[in-house]
This record gives sequence, C-alpha cells and structure tokens, in this order.
Amino acid sequence: MVSTAKVMICGDIVWAHDEVQSMLGPLSEIVRMDSQSREEFYRELSGKFAGTTVIYRHNTSADRIGIFDAELVNKLPTSVKWIGHNGAGYDQIDIDACKKRGIKVSNTPGAVDIGTATTALYLLVSAVRQYSIAERQARSGLWKTGLKPAHDPSALTLGILGLGGIGLTLARLCHGFPMKQIYYHSRTPRADTPDWIEYCSTLEELLAKSDVLSLHVPLKPETEGMIGEREFGLMKKGAILINTARGKVIDEAAMIRALKSGQLSAAGIDVYPDEPNINPELLEFRNVTLLPHMGTETQESQKSMEVRALENLRTYLTGGEPRDLIPEFK
Amino acid sequence: MVSTAKVMICGDIVWAHDEVQSMLGPLSEIVRMDSQSREEFYRELSGKFAGTTVIYRHNTSADRIGIFDAELVNKLPTSVKWIGHNGAGYDQIDIDACKKRGIKVSNTPGAVDIGTATTALYLLVSAVRQYSIAERQARSGLWKTGLKPAHDPSALTLGILGLGGIGLTLARLCHGFPMKQIYYHSRTPRADTPDWIEYCSTLEELLAKSDVLSLHVPLKPETEGMIGEREFGLMKKGAILINTARGKVIDEAAMIRALKSGQLSAAGIDVYPDEPNINPELLEFRNVTLLPHMGTETQESQKSMEVRALENLRTYLTGGEPRDLIPEFK
Repeated sequence: MVSTAKVMICGDIVWAHDEVQSMLGPLSEIVRMDSQSREEFYRELSGKFAGTTVIYRHNTSADRIGIFDAELVNKLPTSVKWIGHNGAGYDQIDIDACKKRGIKVSNTPGAVDIGTATTALYLLVSAVRQYSIAERQARSGLWKTGLKPAHDPSALTLGILGLGGIGLTLARLCHGFPMKQIYYHSRTPRADTPDWIEYCSTLEELLAKSDVLSLHVPLKPETEGMIGEREFGLMKKGAILINTARGKVIDEAAMIRALKSGQLSAAGIDVYPDEPNINPELLEFRNVTLLPHMGTETQESQKSMEVRALENLRTYLTGGEPRDLIPEFK
Repeated sequence: MVSTAKVMICGDIVWAHDEVQSMLGPLSEIVRMDSQSREEFYRELSGKFAGTTVIYRHNTSADRIGIFDAELVNKLPTSVKWIGHNGAGYDQIDIDACKKRGIKVSNTPGAVDIGTATTALYLLVSAVRQYSIAERQARSGLWKTGLKPAHDPSALTLGILGLGGIGLTLARLCHGFPMKQIYYHSRTPRADTPDWIEYCSTLEELLAKSDVLSLHVPLKPETEGMIGEREFGLMKKGAILINTARGKVIDEAAMIRALKSGQLSAAGIDVYPDEPNINPELLEFRNVTLLPHMGTETQESQKSMEVRALENLRTYLTGGEPRDLIPEFK
C-alpha cells in the first residue's frame, strides 16, 4: 500500500457515492476538485491538491478546468502517478504529456459495451428502416405517405471498424437478425471472434463490402478524420454510416457531401466534432437519425464506469496492476 | 387441379409481379380487382369476377371496396373457396361469415416475423433509453439537457404476450442484451421455447413480472381491449408498453390514463385503433415513441408476404393443403 495516498475526485461521481468511500476511503485521503476555473485549479495544485497521488477523472471536469492537455498535465504535482479516467474514450487526456511525466492512465472499457452497442443497434435500425423520418411523419399527421419500403437488416452486410468490446457487442446483437454478413477491420485480427464474423485485412476491403458501416475506433491522432472524402468514395453507393465513437473520426464536411450526393443513403449519429453543437446542415437530411451523445447514458453504464474507474485506482493504491491500463503504456 | 380456376387479385401486389404469372398463370385465369367503390365491386361480382375460385387479398383493397365484412363476404360468388390474405393479421375479414359460406382463409405468418420483431426491438430500445425525446432535443438544440440516465434493457424484464413467430423472434433479438429475464404468456405454453424464456400461466402473472410488456396477439373479439384499466393496474409502476400488434388490443383511453398517472413510464406504439389517425393526446407524452405502422414495411417482408399468400393459393389450386390455413379452421 502506498503510504499517505491522496485521491483527487476530478469530475462527476453520480451513482457510486458510497463506493468512493468504501473503496478508497480506507486507503487514502479523498479531496474533491471544485475549482471554478483552470486558474483556480492551478493555484490549488500547490494547496489542497498538493501531494495528490491518483486522480479520478470524468469529462465533466472539462466544463470548469478544461481538458487534460499538455499544459494542465505538466502542472500536476510530481506526486501524481495515476489518472483513473471514467470513460472508454480518453481523447481529453494528452497521453504523451502523461508519459513524459511518468503518469499512467486507465480507462473503463467493457463497462460501456452494452450501453453504446445498444445505441449503435438503435441507430442502425433507425437508419435502415427510416424510423426517424417515420416518427416525424407520424407526429405531423403525414402517416407513412411517400415512404418507400426499406430493407430488413438481414438483407444487408454490416462492417465494423474497430472490433473492441463495443464493436463485438454490436456484432452479437446484430447477429440476431442475422445480418447478411458481418465484416470487421482492425489493425490486427482478434483471435476470439465467432466464426460468423469475417476479417477484412484492409479498411478499403471493409468499405467495399459494407452496406452499413459502424465506427468503433477511439479518437487518436491517427484516427482523426479517418473516414473522409477518399473513404466515402470507396463505400458502396447508398451505404449507411453509424457513428457512436467520436465525431472527429469522421471528416464531417466530407460526410455532408456524401449525404448530398447520395453516396450515403442514411446515417445514424450519436457523436459530433463540436459537442454539444450539432452542425445544422445535418438536420436538413431526412434520413439522418441524430442523438445527443447518449451512448453511455444509462444508470447501469454510468455506475459501472464510475466503479470501474475507482477500482483501477484502488488496485494501484494497493500495489496491484490496474486491469485497464491503456494500450499506449503496454 | 381444380378446373377452370379463376384468381381474383384484390389489393396490392408490388414486389411479386413476376411470381403472380409464374405461380398462378399456368393454373388459372387471373383477374384484377380494380373496382373504384364497393357498389362497383358488387356489380362486377356477376360480371368479370363471376366464377372466381380463389381471392388474393391485401388490406389496401379496403381503401376502395371496404373490408371483407359479413355483407361483402355474403355477396361473393358461391364458386369462391379460398381467400389467400396477405398479412399476419386478418382482422379485416369476417371469419364467421367465411365459415358459413364454406370459404377457407389463409394468412402469411412467418413472413413478417423479422420485420415486425425488429420494429418492436426498436420501440423497446427507444422507450427504455428515451431516444425519441433525445432525438427531438438534439434536433431542437437542447442536446441532452434534463434527460436523466435511463436503464439498459439488460436491467429490465421483458414480458411477451402471445408467443407466435413475431414474439419468439423478438425474444431472440432481446436475448442478445440479454434482458434480466424474458417471460411470456399465451393460452398454452409452447413446447419449443429456449430455456431462457419462462412461461407465465396467467396474464396477471405476466403483468406483475414485466418491466417492459410487448404485445403479439392477433386482434379478435376476445383480444379486443384486453389491455385495459384492470390490466394497467396490475402492471408494475412505471412499466413500459410496446405495441406492434393491433391498436384495438389496447383500450387506448385506459393507456392514456396510465401514461398520465405514471403507471406507464413510456410506450412504443406502431399500431392504432383508427389508422391512419393517431390520437393527438398521445403526442403530448414525451416518452412515447410513435411509428406509422411500419412493422412490415420492408421490401423483403412485403415480397415474402406476397409470395407466401400466392403460394397458399397455388397449393389450394393444385389440390394440396395450404400451409397457412388460419387456426379458426383447424
């Protein structure tokens, strides 16, 4: 056990209040980040936060002190050894800066698999069956006039870009239809996939084979804008795009052009490059289903993410190896 | 083979034009019902429709000649022996009147299972996760402000009323989450259910156990209004109701009272008592997802229903036993 540990709770804990105390209370002093600005936060780093060992972090802290960019990371006390981020995606933390400071980072994969995969499933059905249009028509008294019958998901192929926990959970949910075929692409094939999922060794192959493409890659420098003009051009004419990953994985301007040209016939979008703002141009396409980043908005996902982020910190504080150390440190 | 067969095509065939000719052309004379009114239809029954042996029927014919009520059935030529209805539900045909005239009726079960079960799955996810509200908020610039995290489907029990093909397909799709537990009730237990589905011998037991209740019973005199004041009272407080069966299976006024009182916390509705009209009171509840009877609106479902209705007629005309004779005749 690390002696004189201090845990900074930086951002929301809503569902696991009791667990903060029961899991970390016996091991550490717990201080809550309630700075109202980045400047105030910086001042307090040498005050109430001095000697902080580990940080629980949630994206909600960015509302007041901003993201964990290099500037902020570089100002953290040298005592900080671990950031237990609450969330699967950790694009709000500058990992290179953390590495240079000797701070390790964990995330909460797995905890969000079912919540986010359910959202992707919903967007897929909505886009394929035109239900967003249909509901707006029902609510405005138009009934289903003018809506041509769409396809069953089972008549279409699904391509999954990035077969982590969320992508694999989506594959399992969609296998119930079943889809005509499910393909995936990731840098290396997974060894544990069921035999009804087929690996595409290149992104180009995946794009060429998919009627519906669902994105499940983290946002990193190398994935930013990875679905752009060239990739839309390689998709099937009339393909459908689902994004529950991060808005910036797509070049949004290129997506809008693909929707205008009909290269994309529909889309289901939960994440945007500049949240909570949604590009108003997207509202103009009838067959785009838009959700306000609802992927993990369930009590069960939220609590399980909070508990898992805390577990990683507890494991570190008790001298163990936190299970969710992010790949950049492996 | 029945000699001098004549087939009346009564209502839309959109996807199986070729199959009408290839399946029935060699066996029969094909006449299309294009009467513009019930009166004109009655006049033509002794003209171009005289000697009709079998009738292909689609609900779209009701737009011009009305439903197959007792009056209409009683005026059909005595030569009519079979009505091959296109659709799982045949509530637009007066079955007692058909029996008295010696006319048998087939429907198209199975063909609609995946299409309708997918719709029920969508409505379930939408109602459980509040996505209808969420999309309206996204589109109006409110983002997810004020939306409290909902539940994962896996935290809830699902009750299926009527475990025919559609109900069982929904069960299989939802098992992917998986639900906390899946229950069903029907008059007699099915012998072929997977071991993760639990039978409730009474409707009351199903109502008491279900967080989400999905209806999959046909509309018949004994099912009309079967979910009414008493049944809403027997549900869990805050239960969720999904209806992709027929609007009249629910007492709509009682459902609206249950939504007002919070006895129902959400609903997902595809079917209404007076289609294409939707009771405007339903629009006032935020967490009601409304679709304009989209259950079977896919090219694959539509074609497969058309082909299956035609298959039943071909089987009859070749002296066989059509596989989809409705239960009332068994």
